[in-house]
Amino acid sequence: MIKPLFWEDNRLFIVDQTLLPLEYKQIEIKNHLDMADAVKRLAIRGAPAIGIAAAAGLVVGLKSFINSGSTIFLEKLDEITAILNSTRPTAVNLSWALKRMKSVAKSMKHKPVPDIWDRLYQEALTIHQEDIAMCQAIARHGQNLIPEKANILTHCNTGGLATGGLGTALGIIITAYQNGKDIHVYVDETRPLLQGARLTAWELTEEKVPYTLISDNMAAYVMSTQNIDAVIVGADRIAANGDTANKIGTYGLAVLADFHNVPFYIAAPSSTIDPGIQSGQQITIEERDGNEVRNLFGTQISPMNSKAISPAFDVTPNKLIAGIITEKGRFGTPYNFL
Amino acid sequence: MIKPLFWEDNRLFIVDQTLLPLEYKQIEIKNHLDMADAVKRLAIRGAPAIGIAAAAGLVVGLKSFINSGSTIFLEKLDEITAILNSTRPTAVNLSWALKRMKSVAKSMKHKPVPDIWDRLYQEALTIHQEDIAMCQAIARHGQNLIPEKANILTHCNTGGLATGGLGTALGIIITAYQNGKDIHVYVDETRPLLQGARLTAWELTEEKVPYTLISDNMAAYVMSTQNIDAVIVGADRIAANGDTANKIGTYGLAVLADFHNVPFYIAAPSSTIDPGIQSGQQITIEERDGNEVRNLFGTQISPMNSKAISPAFDVTPNKLIAGIITEKGRFGTPYNFL
Repeated sequence: MIKPLFWEDNRLFIVDQTLLPLEYKQIEIKNHLDMADAVKRLAIRGAPAIGIAAAAGLVVGLKSFINSGSTIFLEKLDEITAILNSTRPTAVNLSWALKRMKSVAKSMKHKPVPDIWDRLYQEALTIHQEDIAMCQAIARHGQNLIPEKANILTHCNTGGLATGGLGTALGIIITAYQNGKDIHVYVDETRPLLQGARLTAWELTEEKVPYTLISDNMAAYVMSTQNIDAVIVGADRIAANGDTANKIGTYGLAVLADFHNVPFYIAAPSSTIDPGIQSGQQITIEERDGNEVRNLFGTQISPMNSKAISPAFDVTPNKLIAGIITEKGRFGTPYNFL
Repeated sequence: MIKPLFWEDNRLFIVDQTLLPLEYKQIEIKNHLDMADAVKRLAIRGAPAIGIAAAAGLVVGLKSFINSGSTIFLEKLDEITAILNSTRPTAVNLSWALKRMKSVAKSMKHKPVPDIWDRLYQEALTIHQEDIAMCQAIARHGQNLIPEKANILTHCNTGGLATGGLGTALGIIITAYQNGKDIHVYVDETRPLLQGARLTAWELTEEKVPYTLISDNMAAYVMSTQNIDAVIVGADRIAANGDTANKIGTYGLAVLADFHNVPFYIAAPSSTIDPGIQSGQQITIEERDGNEVRNLFGTQISPMNSKAISPAFDVTPNKLIAGIITEKGRFGTPYNFL
């Protein structure tokens, strides 16, 4: 199985996804700063995966303080948590995982520090294990959305590289294929960082699922000329009313699906749901550097001084979403995750 | 003024647009095969410009036969016309210009060959001159679509590089800016060949018009978060009922504009209208090599063996088009170009 993050002899490694598909390179994460950097530059990405990554990053970051007193250890815990939390502002899984780790530590604050650290390590592994089970449950709940013969369009990467397990949206699709369904996937390349072309195409190649890579702006053409049965994508944050923040381009895709009467689904762990926010308007959209648009894999594609924007996400209003699949089952409109 | 093609001492040159914006390089077109190659690999592109290019390419191609007999000259005329005509199947301007050149030659078939060639050279220059006047007229007719303060979204390149003059859609926008309007342009990068990022951004930089470069999949986000007053794009072929073939991504943009109540306009010379076809369903869509999607400026972005498609155009149905601006004026629904 494709693994974005793994432990080996108590050492933590990730696959540097910025180099895929040209190079498959594992890098060691020695402390929380390595992890913060990896998350920021998207060497590890995908909402569920960065929750797992944050928990693991906290564990390796705290390792240096295992022989410190409890006060220092807990201070460092707060400090490292804040650093990791600030790496990506939109994905809720990050803060969800860190909050969980923190509450475990606080509940043990009178115990010896090495015991707290051991427990945090176990908790990070548990978060990872739960993610694997969560992916399996999502894939199961999503199966009846996929006809026996289906053309599915997807955006960004929501597979094994984006999670601890087999993926969310892509997990549903790959599982349908493995269950014997006749599946063809249309893969949006997903500018600016090309997670579709680089990562989803790579995963589908590895899993031998038939697919066609398209530029994002070909989606309407594909919907009007091919028989597209469903669009399935992931999510980075879901509001109580079902409004969903996901990779830039998702909202446009939902509008196009609506126009072409193609059902549009979100697949994400329930930890992506943030009942604390009522609607998408309250979701902070991460603004990344315009260089992501002016450049491509290191190649300049526009005049040097072009102004460019790079919002990492957009918000799809609930009325365009035919269903939200989590490990708890499938939800339909009206969404009410309070 | 930006010129994609020009004559100097009876020698024909084009700007190799595949190298922009990194390099501004003029290349000489010595015969029709040079021109066919340049059109095919998009060194010169844009519906109006390739009409001018085809006529000029025919002239340089026939120069070698100026001392041949009339029969051979006219045979070569047919042969070269066929070669140039086959370079791009969708744009109607190409066949329109060649048909016009051919009918001039045929009307003079009893004259001495050097006279026919001279007349064809003059006709090619006339086609170019008419294009300059056509661009000016389009820019004039388009002005009242642009408010005093306006955010305009455009796709692909429809400026000086795409025409013999100041452009079609981009000509309207730049003229509005030069007339003192407060204009901001959102430029779709326009994958796969990035004519927006490479050429439109370059032209707007040259003309000092404020703009923001976006990935194509950010258009919906921009429409929902900025106050976009209009989308204006060009066309490669317009059916009698107004259905319009234009650069891939145009159709999706029209759907998004419709959803956001943003007026969507086409600007193109009337030679782009093909009254011989009733609707968009009859328009042949040029299928280009999937490598255009798998690669980007020479950089591989997906697994080597990924299947990818690269339709050069899509068709926007007339009902999504608020107006079509040609040199003859502005047309509204229902379109009837018979």
